[in-house]
Amino acid sequence: MARLAAFTPKPMNADTTARRTGFPARSSSRLAAASARAAVAVLSLSLLLAVAAGPGAARLSAQNGPQVARAYRDAHGPAILRDFAKLLSYPNVARDSVDIRRNAAYIRDQLRAVGVEARLLEVDGAPPIVYGTLEVPGAKRTLGLYAHYDGQPVTPSEWTHGPWDPTLYTRAIESGGTPRAFPADGEAVDLEWRIYARSSGDDKAPIGALLPTLRAFREAGVRPTSNLIFLLEGEEEAGSPHLEAYLKEYRDLFAPVDVWLFFDGPAHQSGRPQLTFGVRGVMDMELTVYGADRNLHSGHYGNWAPDPGMMLSQLLASMKDANGQVLVQGFYDTDAPLGPEEKAALAALPEYDAQLKKELGLSWTEGEPETLAQRLMLPALNVLGIKVAETGAHHTNAIASTAVADLGIRLVKGNTPEHMKELIEAHIRKQGYHIVRQDPDMATRLRYRKIVKVTGGQGYPAARTNMDNPYVRQIVAAGRAAADHAFGKGSLVLEPGLGGSLPLYLFTDTLGKPAVNVPVANYDDNQHAADENVRVANLWYAIELYAQLLTMPGA
Amino acid sequence: MARLAAFTPKPMNADTTARRTGFPARSSSRLAAASARAAVAVLSLSLLLAVAAGPGAARLSAQNGPQVARAYRDAHGPAILRDFAKLLSYPNVARDSVDIRRNAAYIRDQLRAVGVEARLLEVDGAPPIVYGTLEVPGAKRTLGLYAHYDGQPVTPSEWTHGPWDPTLYTRAIESGGTPRAFPADGEAVDLEWRIYARSSGDDKAPIGALLPTLRAFREAGVRPTSNLIFLLEGEEEAGSPHLEAYLKEYRDLFAPVDVWLFFDGPAHQSGRPQLTFGVRGVMDMELTVYGADRNLHSGHYGNWAPDPGMMLSQLLASMKDANGQVLVQGFYDTDAPLGPEEKAALAALPEYDAQLKKELGLSWTEGEPETLAQRLMLPALNVLGIKVAETGAHHTNAIASTAVADLGIRLVKGNTPEHMKELIEAHIRKQGYHIVRQDPDMATRLRYRKIVKVTGGQGYPAARTNMDNPYVRQIVAAGRAAADHAFGKGSLVLEPGLGGSLPLYLFTDTLGKPAVNVPVANYDDNQHAADENVRVANLWYAIELYAQLLTMPGA
Repeated sequence: MARLAAFTPKPMNADTTARRTGFPARSSSRLAAASARAAVAVLSLSLLLAVAAGPGAARLSAQNGPQVARAYRDAHGPAILRDFAKLLSYPNVARDSVDIRRNAAYIRDQLRAVGVEARLLEVDGAPPIVYGTLEVPGAKRTLGLYAHYDGQPVTPSEWTHGPWDPTLYTRAIESGGTPRAFPADGEAVDLEWRIYARSSGDDKAPIGALLPTLRAFREAGVRPTSNLIFLLEGEEEAGSPHLEAYLKEYRDLFAPVDVWLFFDGPAHQSGRPQLTFGVRGVMDMELTVYGADRNLHSGHYGNWAPDPGMMLSQLLASMKDANGQVLVQGFYDTDAPLGPEEKAALAALPEYDAQLKKELGLSWTEGEPETLAQRLMLPALNVLGIKVAETGAHHTNAIASTAVADLGIRLVKGNTPEHMKELIEAHIRKQGYHIVRQDPDMATRLRYRKIVKVTGGQGYPAARTNMDNPYVRQIVAAGRAAADHAFGKGSLVLEPGLGGSLPLYLFTDTLGKPAVNVPVANYDDNQHAADENVRVANLWYAIELYAQLLTMPGA
Repeated sequence: MARLAAFTPKPMNADTTARRTGFPARSSSRLAAASARAAVAVLSLSLLLAVAAGPGAARLSAQNGPQVARAYRDAHGPAILRDFAKLLSYPNVARDSVDIRRNAAYIRDQLRAVGVEARLLEVDGAPPIVYGTLEVPGAKRTLGLYAHYDGQPVTPSEWTHGPWDPTLYTRAIESGGTPRAFPADGEAVDLEWRIYARSSGDDKAPIGALLPTLRAFREAGVRPTSNLIFLLEGEEEAGSPHLEAYLKEYRDLFAPVDVWLFFDGPAHQSGRPQLTFGVRGVMDMELTVYGADRNLHSGHYGNWAPDPGMMLSQLLASMKDANGQVLVQGFYDTDAPLGPEEKAALAALPEYDAQLKKELGLSWTEGEPETLAQRLMLPALNVLGIKVAETGAHHTNAIASTAVADLGIRLVKGNTPEHMKELIEAHIRKQGYHIVRQDPDMATRLRYRKIVKVTGGQGYPAARTNMDNPYVRQIVAAGRAAADHAFGKGSLVLEPGLGGSLPLYLFTDTLGKPAVNVPVANYDDNQHAADENVRVANLWYAIELYAQLLTMPGA
């Protein structure tokens, strides 16, 4: 850095016409604008590098990309955070069709502002996909960039702040963080700050980091080394029910992609950055168990009337042993065995279970002594919710007529949702239950001793990408460079499978393209829960990582 | 009835001064008022009886009480229903101190209007007791009349109409009933009508029937054969936490009572009227099971993180077998054995399980082949509510950090809440749980593998009254007469124990007085649940029954 030339401010001369027409061949005026803003901000050496190559200099080469991104980040940190907060302020539950379209339109416009040719794709009854292209003259490789802009449904009463009132904290709430104002231009940014809001980690963080990365490149005239195709989905948290239809309907738009980058999920539980090469599949089921056809007074009928809360508990308890082993016959039989590469990657993973248990207040875990990494290579069965009447101040002295449980199933390579549903239903029948698909009528009630309504069962399978694919090797190299820079030499973790679920199978299996998951959020981001948050350090890492990926050596 | 004289209308001449000063020695003017109103109503033969004895005639004797009440009921049926609806329109959840006091004041005023010297008793922090006396010159026996004016908490979304918007139906909703307007004076009243509202059955029905019975007596000059002491409680559904304090504080007011009549609970499940001589005790507990100290993504942690919904299910399932037998050691050991009278009464009970199961849509019951009557002689354990995150449209893909269950325990003679709580906690410990009383801190979480918070455990014991007590024999005779008249000869059921709970032990054990439970509501009244209702026939029976009880031969 000491070899850099001195800084010379230049007049602003915005090139507005370039904004909506792909990546500008020259955008020195952007660079000038950046440098002008930087003059009032903390001036970092990294910025000097970018600025020194300003108007009149040759366009910066791709290999300067990471430095340019860092300089931009250092100069515009407060604005990046405020822009991200604006993005997070849009309520984004997929089933709210008005809310979700507002998100899509806003993101489309933001992409256009950084030179992406962006528009909304539509299929009937689905949130739009924000599609975009950024064509780079001469690029021989096309990266597909996937993220999703919808978020998990919320229970606002559980949140410290409104889920869509982004709030900056000095650190994590559970570590004693306190709320503070978003920084003004020129204020120093603390990497331990956290932004609390739905989707701050999952999955608007990638969008919030991609936009300034592209803006930095645009302003500095750095060209990516690949063509880019954006696919930003709006119903991933609802199980991506229309993604397949989108990929079929717009097959031609996505055909040029050579390798997909999936920007989703948190970093490794050790706190280290990671790349992953597979995801678990997912499938939800809802079970409703029936007692009498009305709620009954627990005094006048208790000890005689069937007790659906108890029946449901017995049914659920039959599915897992005390150590967390699923007892559904055949549940683990469907695993596709791990190959030698995956086994080697697993073996190289850092040991972090002990620390993680301590952080989460756990004195045991399911399947001990197997580690989290090992357990994520197996399918999972979890109780996501149970509803039997009311508890606490609202409980009544009645035996409820129904009891409902939602099960969350995670699949591994070799399972299908259909097959797992069959296995679980066979188990339920073995417990003496008659399965129905809608609420039973009187004749059905009087005919069967135990009745359960099973609904759901939709989902999608797991996916896995071969780690020795040439494109994948390039991505690993770029990821390693970003991790080395942001977290220290050798910090990158390569994980054969991510525990969470993404509709990666549509890309790996249906389209037949390699897909690498490139997560950036902090692992303790309360993803899917209340008080979801992102650590600023992770957002900054994302910018570093995207700059590396977008400027990695050509194919 | 054919022997009755012709009807002659008389001018009204209200005796307003008598209203608040006990039962009037002469109230011929009330009778005249009644007869004037009756002239515009359906004129029944029963009414003629009362009216024929009008002004100038000697005061009607007690033995005319039932006929007078029937005549009044026949003449004023629509007004009785409308007045009752007014009483039901007052929201009455005990913990709403404003609502509950409005109920108390209204009922006090209504009692005063029928000649009861009524006032509110108070102890700190409790809903008032509506206390009243009606002294009858020369009466040698004092009846204590207990009812409660508070109702179970509601979940309004589960109700067809607002819980405090009393709605008249042509019959039960589940039998195809449709809503209709409350009848105008003179309209015929259908005994199959039902009034839907919270507390319509439990426990404002007795108040709604006592008021017109006393009004009928007052207007006809019929004197009860006992002094009456009213005790109308306002927090029975909250477990009567202050009743004992009230009985101590106002011991002298209640000391004259010779025998208590408990107006609460539904009629026999066969549809026949009943008297019962005991109640089960009650005790509630809440269990909270802990996983990680935050909700965790079911993908990234599922199959490794402890699953509180599953742990709670396993804990609950350990408490009962598939046939409904409670597996908590010692749970049934504490029963006081039934005496020969109780056994004889049990043996004489009508068989109704088969019909009841059909009505409720049940193909099995807990403890089969034991009958409901037999099962109610045993303690009960029921799941009243379970709360784990959310289900259905609101569920998220997270493993909840806690799972909560509310247990309802019913006790029989010989149990205490304290002992039952000890037994259940011993069972919980045997399942490997460490019991805490408040949410565990980190040190506790990291020390114990399984942690459960147990709260509650308050309640009260069961009670039983000896069936050969002389006062009890008088009550049985009056109850038999009412049942014979309203439901047919021999219809009265004598049940040694009611499944539900009343704080009867305070009277039988603490005060040492016999207490008979005298229920009137239809057994299918959805008591404690949504769409609670009372059948008009049962309200009419209540008036018949109270008329018989208030005029039974002297001690």
